[in-house]
Amino acid sequence: LPRLKAEYLNSLCSEILKRSGVSEVDAAIVSENLVEANLKGHDSHGVLLLPTYVARIGQGIYDVKAKIDILLDSPSITLLDGNWGFGQVIAKRAMEMAIAKAKRNGISYVGVRHSNHIGRLGYYAKMALQEDVIAIMMANSGGPVAPYGGKSPIMGTNPICVAIPSGTFPPLVLDMATSVVAGGKVFDRRERGEKVPGDWLIDHQGKPTTDPANYGPGKGTLLTLGGSVGYKGFGLSLVVDILGGILTGAGITVSKERRPGGNGISIICIDTKQITPVETFKQKTKELIEIVKRSDTRPGFEEVLVPGEPSSRKEIERFQNGIEIPESLWRKIEEIAEELGIDTKSTA
Amino acid sequence: LPRLKAEYLNSLCSEILKRSGVSEVDAAIVSENLVEANLKGHDSHGVLLLPTYVARIGQGIYDVKAKIDILLDSPSITLLDGNWGFGQVIAKRAMEMAIAKAKRNGISYVGVRHSNHIGRLGYYAKMALQEDVIAIMMANSGGPVAPYGGKSPIMGTNPICVAIPSGTFPPLVLDMATSVVAGGKVFDRRERGEKVPGDWLIDHQGKPTTDPANYGPGKGTLLTLGGSVGYKGFGLSLVVDILGGILTGAGITVSKERRPGGNGISIICIDTKQITPVETFKQKTKELIEIVKRSDTRPGFEEVLVPGEPSSRKEIERFQNGIEIPESLWRKIEEIAEELGIDTKSTA
Repeated sequence: LPRLKAEYLNSLCSEILKRSGVSEVDAAIVSENLVEANLKGHDSHGVLLLPTYVARIGQGIYDVKAKIDILLDSPSITLLDGNWGFGQVIAKRAMEMAIAKAKRNGISYVGVRHSNHIGRLGYYAKMALQEDVIAIMMANSGGPVAPYGGKSPIMGTNPICVAIPSGTFPPLVLDMATSVVAGGKVFDRRERGEKVPGDWLIDHQGKPTTDPANYGPGKGTLLTLGGSVGYKGFGLSLVVDILGGILTGAGITVSKERRPGGNGISIICIDTKQITPVETFKQKTKELIEIVKRSDTRPGFEEVLVPGEPSSRKEIERFQNGIEIPESLWRKIEEIAEELGIDTKSTA
Repeated sequence: LPRLKAEYLNSLCSEILKRSGVSEVDAAIVSENLVEANLKGHDSHGVLLLPTYVARIGQGIYDVKAKIDILLDSPSITLLDGNWGFGQVIAKRAMEMAIAKAKRNGISYVGVRHSNHIGRLGYYAKMALQEDVIAIMMANSGGPVAPYGGKSPIMGTNPICVAIPSGTFPPLVLDMATSVVAGGKVFDRRERGEKVPGDWLIDHQGKPTTDPANYGPGKGTLLTLGGSVGYKGFGLSLVVDILGGILTGAGITVSKERRPGGNGISIICIDTKQITPVETFKQKTKELIEIVKRSDTRPGFEEVLVPGEPSSRKEIERFQNGIEIPESLWRKIEEIAEELGIDTKSTA
């Protein structure tokens, strides 16, 4: 498989976006979001998405010239209309505004409608940490995921992300789909010709299946987080669909207002230092992480990892050794580059 | 088993608390919180707790005369010190303040330290619905629960509760432990001589067990929500311990500052109408609930239930037919009543 350095992928990705009409600043944001996902091992949110993004620009689903409208602007609350620009550009702006208002007022809310796909949420939530702000982010999304007890494909993978200042490396960032896993993990298994665990999927009859080919529109669905207590993951997923899709006016997962891949976003930011001395907060959070990591392990586990750790290790490894891109994806990217007149050999 | 009407249990519970030194107003709040839990089928959070509460008053762990101190009071943020009064009284006050500030400023945060056990979270979160306010509540708590991959009893069951205005009956209230189940459900199985499902517990060696006797200090622990992806429930549990225990100054689950059964509480309230027209919001939320409930069901399921539905059905049934109290618990309550000079036959 082609193994590419992050820096090279980043500049190639940026160049493709720029030649597709995206501004230099916006192209840099989108590329960074995608390549960071690859670095962190979440290939489903990486440059795999680039061909889709480029196609959607061509289809007019993405408006590369879109301006963000501020629909509401009170001391603690902001509501944004992304006007179907790049989700990454809109979500980054939304998080900046949420952080700024939290720093003024202690706590803030920012909602976003009409945003295309925003990629990995952790990318935005971690921005808050530089300012010692806690970020809680929810985005409703596509699926298909079935409600607990049901088999209809009406829920999204609806992720929740929380970033908490801890002064530790890696930073404490929980970034999770409320389904058992994100859809991309099923595609990944399929591509590798592997089965999925028995508690991930049900087929179109609602029966558990380990065949990843059973996932997708008209086929089977993902289950919500929880296995035998999947009503909890389902409850969380509903909360995300309502806060992401209804409170913001973005539209719920199954609504026609939500464009393919689009996300309705709700962000809550809290300025730590307006509640408690920030150094104490970070020190105690660090101590909790240490307590947890000192835990005796279960059979089959070598250590306890906290949120952010597995992906950070992957990032260090891939930063050094490069990112493996599946052959078929690399061919697609090369084709796109060629059409746009980019020499893939000399971009970096 | 003795089967008692909620009204009778409520007044008996109130009378016991009053004779133990609790004010009339406070006794009514605590009793209502406990009996509502029984009505809703969550017996682990019901009058089962009364003997413990009375004992803790005797031991000086609960200060029935405690005043709540306001440590911080900015337009959007409140930090309360409960001074080890009754958790129910403190949590209710905290939610009232969170709702009031959300109505003024759009969004609010209230943190609470030094609170004894607050019981079922849904009791407070649903208060927000009368004001068309969204409530998010987290409370760190006792366990024992093991971190994902670990077996040390260092996490709590750390519940999250979200109430969302929907104009539906029952109201949409998600109230869930971030462990697979609350500890009380294990005790319940043990009392009934039943095994627990294989993904609930590990024993002291970290091996899965179905024997509920393996749960408790020095024995086994509960697992975090998620089964094979239990790192998600673990991540949520960490977030609750930090927001409930560190941001508030209450102390994390394993800290000495947290008294037995005590909860560190974080509440976020959002005033729906300051973001979107409230009738539209409620209508669209109701529609989403209807879409979900129309889902085709999986084999083994008769219908899809949304958060709040199962407990509401139980409540209607138990309100009419009474609440069954285990023989041993009823004897304990009768003894306490007798010591306090209450005639259990004539309280109602």
